[in-house]
Parts: sequence; C-alpha cells; structure tokens
Amino acid sequence: MNETVTTVDADVVLETIRDALRTHGASDDAADVQAKALFEAELRAHPSHGVRRLAVVVERMRRGLIDVDSTPLLTWVSPAVVRVDGQGGFGPVVMNRAIAATMLRADETGIAMAVIANSSHIGMLAPYVERIAERGQIAVVLTTSEALVHAWGGREPIVGTNPIGIGVPTGGSPLVLDMSTAAVSMGKVIDYAATSRPLAPGWAIDSEGAPTTNAGAALGGAISPFGGAKGYALGITLEAMIGFLTTTSFGTDIAGTLDVELPSTKGDLLICISAERLGLQSSLPLLARYLTQVRDSGSENGSVDIPGDRARRTREENLRQGVLLDQTVWADALAMAKGGSPRA
Amino acid sequence: MNETVTTVDADVVLETIRDALRTHGASDDAADVQAKALFEAELRAHPSHGVRRLAVVVERMRRGLIDVDSTPLLTWVSPAVVRVDGQGGFGPVVMNRAIAATMLRADETGIAMAVIANSSHIGMLAPYVERIAERGQIAVVLTTSEALVHAWGGREPIVGTNPIGIGVPTGGSPLVLDMSTAAVSMGKVIDYAATSRPLAPGWAIDSEGAPTTNAGAALGGAISPFGGAKGYALGITLEAMIGFLTTTSFGTDIAGTLDVELPSTKGDLLICISAERLGLQSSLPLLARYLTQVRDSGSENGSVDIPGDRARRTREENLRQGVLLDQTVWADALAMAKGGSPRA
Repeated sequence: MNETVTTVDADVVLETIRDALRTHGASDDAADVQAKALFEAELRAHPSHGVRRLAVVVERMRRGLIDVDSTPLLTWVSPAVVRVDGQGGFGPVVMNRAIAATMLRADETGIAMAVIANSSHIGMLAPYVERIAERGQIAVVLTTSEALVHAWGGREPIVGTNPIGIGVPTGGSPLVLDMSTAAVSMGKVIDYAATSRPLAPGWAIDSEGAPTTNAGAALGGAISPFGGAKGYALGITLEAMIGFLTTTSFGTDIAGTLDVELPSTKGDLLICISAERLGLQSSLPLLARYLTQVRDSGSENGSVDIPGDRARRTREENLRQGVLLDQTVWADALAMAKGGSPRA
Repeated sequence: MNETVTTVDADVVLETIRDALRTHGASDDAADVQAKALFEAELRAHPSHGVRRLAVVVERMRRGLIDVDSTPLLTWVSPAVVRVDGQGGFGPVVMNRAIAATMLRADETGIAMAVIANSSHIGMLAPYVERIAERGQIAVVLTTSEALVHAWGGREPIVGTNPIGIGVPTGGSPLVLDMSTAAVSMGKVIDYAATSRPLAPGWAIDSEGAPTTNAGAALGGAISPFGGAKGYALGITLEAMIGFLTTTSFGTDIAGTLDVELPSTKGDLLICISAERLGLQSSLPLLARYLTQVRDSGSENGSVDIPGDRARRTREENLRQGVLLDQTVWADALAMAKGGSPRA
C-alpha cells in the first residue's frame, strides 16, 4: 500500500462529506444530495470529482458563491421546456429539482428539456443519467466547463472539457455514457507535472500550439480534444448549443466550478425521453440482445464492455472493500467535518 | 488533371441526377429532393454520399426496395414526439416531411422529436441540420447504419458508423457538425485496398482484432471507432438510443443502405428546438462573438475553423468551378439519366 493513500469504509466517506457540508451551513437535505454527488464520483474511481472537490465546495459556501439557502426557480417557457434558475444553489440540488420536473413532463409530452443557469458544479454526469434510465427514461445531460481545451489548429485554451452524459434503459442495468470531450483531464496533467512524468502523445499542446508530452509545458498551453479534429468539432458544438440554450457564458468567460473566487457562469442541459409514454417497453429485449452480442464480440480471453459496465464494477467493489483516498485529502475532509476551514 | 476524373458544371450534375431518378419512376418532387441530397454531398466533397450512390438508389427503386409512390405516415404518439413510418420511400423525402412537422411542433412545444423507421438512406446529415438552423432552430439528426465498426476490445464489426449531425443558429452562417463516429469511412478503406496504400494507424483492425495498417486485412476485420474507447462508447450509445427509440434494428441486423438486396432496417432520429419559442434571439450576438474568438485562436499563419466552415467554402468553390467526378461514376449517371440500368 502506498503511504500517501488510505482505505476508508464507504459509509464513513459519505457521512464525513455530509458532516462537512452541514457543519458549514447546508441543510440536511442539501448536504445529503451534494455529498452523494461527490461520493458517487469517488465510488466510480473518478477522484477529481470526489472528496478532493469538497474543499472547493465548502469554501464557495463560506464565501457565499454557493447560496445554501436558495431554492431553484423553475419557469416553463413552453410546454416541453423548463428554464431553471439555480439561484446560486448546490449544483446537484438544482439538477435533482430539474430532473424531477423534466421527467414528470416527459411522461406527458414524450420529450422534455431543462435549460439550467446560475447553478454550481453538478459533478459527474453518470449518477444522474443512470438514475433517470433506471426509472425508464432516456436521459441526456450536458454541461459546459472552464476553457481548458484548444481548438483544432488553435494554440490557447478556448473550449471546455464539455462532457456528455447519456443513459439508456436496457431492461437490466442501464447503458451509461459519461465522457469528457477532452483527451485527458487537467487533474491528470497537473499530477503528471508534479511527478515529472511524460504525457501520452495527443494529450496536450504547449504555449506555441505544438503538441507536447511535457506536462509542465502543457500547463502553459492547453489540453487537446479527444479524437483529434472530430473531438474538437463535437466539443465546440456542445458548448455553442448549451451556452446558447441556457443563455450562459462561453469559452474563457466560463468560471466558478474550479475556483473559489468567481460566480458560476456555466450552463447545464437536461433532456428526458419517456420510453413508457412512447410505448417502447416491448423493444427492450431486442436492445438487451444486441448489447449481449456486443459484450460477446471480443476474443476468447478479452472482454468487451458496454458504457457503464466498468464504473458499475468499480462502484460495487469500492462499496464492499472501501474507498482508496489520498491521505491529505481525507485528513482535510475529516477536519472540515469538525468545522475546520477548507484548504482550497 | 487526373485522367480518371472529370469536372462537370454543378447544375448539370444536379439535372442529371434528377433525370436519372425521374426516368426510373420518381415523381418530379421526389426526384428533386433525392437528387439534391446526393448533389449536396458531392458539393461538400463527400463523394461516398454523392453521385456514386445514385446507382444504388436507382437499383433499389427498380427492385421495389424504395417505393417511389409511397407517402410517409406520421403519428403523434405524444404532444412533442412524432413517429414517422417512411413506408419505404426515399430517405430525404421522408426526412423532409419529418422536419416540416417537427419544426412546426417545436415552435409550440419548444422541443420536439421525430423517430423515423422504414425509410431509406438519408445521405449526409449536414444539409438537413444546416437548413433547420438557418430557419432559427437547433437541430440534431442521428441515424444508424450497417455494422462496420468494432467494439473497443472486440474483433468483429458490430457497431454502425452512426454519424452525428447538429446545427446551431449563430446569427450568420450556422454552426454545422456532421461527423461519423468511425475513424475512417469504409469507402476510403476499399479505395486504399484497391491501390495498395497503407492505412493510417488507428483506422482498422484485422480479423483477429489486432490493429492493422494493411487495407486488405482491414476489409476482413473492421473499422475502428474514432478517438479510441471514447469514440466506441459514443457510437454504441447512439446506436442503442436510436434503435430503441425508432424500434428499428441493431448491429449486424441493420441493412439496406449500402446493398441492393435487403429492405432498409436502420432508424433516424430528429430533434428540433425552437430558439424563437424559447426567446433566445437576443443571445445570438454572444454566441457569434465566441465563435469569432475561437476562429482567432490559432497562430498568425494558421486558421481555425468552426464546424461547417470548411464544407461551406468547398461547396461555394464547387458551385463556381464545377464538381470533380470520377469518370466512370459520371458516365454511369449519364447513362442512367437516359434510362439505362445502373451498374450497382
């Protein structure tokens, strides 16, 4: 076991995050929802969206950049579209409210959409779309984020890592897509720079726009989109669509999810489609059969996953065996749970 | 000038395709719509979806696999979702009917969706989403296609090239995304195999599932998804979502867009969002400003494109200077326009 990490029981992790949020002013309900968002990312081995982010959330609460007492304001601007003003509240609290309203409406209209502004970071997308798909609706969740990615042919960060979350019911465990449109996370580049490890080719450019495997040079440049020109095209299209629909900011004007100084100016988009309303239940076996065919399409020793499979295995393992946490991150979380200030 | 290609005036190309379709039984209106779909792909330098495909369309008409006299059947299964039974008609004719109905409904409901089955190949997605965006709505067009792509870790073709089309109004020329989720087109692999050129790394696997740059070996294996595991995850998620919503086929059960023997079993999805209904016009300048920033984010000599820019330049150039066509493909088109049989 590496000395800088520690294994903690899953329920202790969740309770500690909850305590830290409550101690710093969150209601029981809000603390529970926000805590679970961080906890679920940790369970899925996505630590950049896990306990590590607690300090930023608590510090933003302390500075009033997250309004712990606010209630999201929902306005149906058309029969199938609700505009959600998060009123500066916790991202997961706002998103849950949007999900409840949008799912209910999709059961009438077939498809419904929420466009969400003035909300805080919503964390990993997988838990949202998975939950919606488990309840029989197809879910698409999109969000913009700080400009960290360069345009194709560009030499400065100007596009967000703009992740895509899609959940599809399958009869059994849902298909769950949750992927960033960047080649690598900024957290990983920072980590590689700190330990002087070389980046993989294609991950980043330097300040002149030239591809680099030097993590330090990448910090002065930008992260690359995944999949080259196509990943860039996808990422910027999502940013344009989300920003336009939510009337939030674009590119370098997006702030407030990674820092503790600025209001959150990103936007979130949610689309729900009711399989029940569209009479699709009888089609589930055909989809399930296809997914089995895909899982069986590897070599005899190899395995093929459907999106969501690996995270589901990791989550179950972590629930059983405990969560591996950075010792410093965990010590800070314990301190915050006792009322201490975050070291964000 | 290469001897195997010829330059033809754009209006002659369009008229010849129209004539070939009319001569073989299409009505004037249907011939015009189908011809423009092929023509627009050719103008955008996407020959695999251009005149080259005319022979397949005509042969499918001759065999009754495209029903030239059919009318799409639209059923509103919920206030914002229309189920479209293409009745075996021309793909672009069915899609145009779906677009008209869905845009009209989106102007009421804000967002509306068409799920389309029993239709023929719709061709490039760009012209559809561009036209919708020019009329002020955000458009998403998705379609499944024959299984040519392997799963990540898999060794046989089981996922379609499942392209994504998205159009976003910008005040000026729309942002237009039209990209396949495959690393390369099958047309290009066939072309490379015929001329014994090596493929780029990452484009394909052989029949054992091993990456290969041998085009011949790739024909016995499968095309790779673009962007590695992420591209696979995106492609299969789209296939699951589209097939489920349209109650059409999946994977290797999809046929009828490349061959001239089988009924079309793929599905198409259309989502329209009315910017006007959602009161978003005043946000267009902010989006336009961002896109300008992105275009300016390259080096002094480099250029950065927004999705749709390059195709727009190519299209205008081809309209002015004529279209470069394979001589055999063009000779066949001329023969079909005079009533000759296709050599599909």
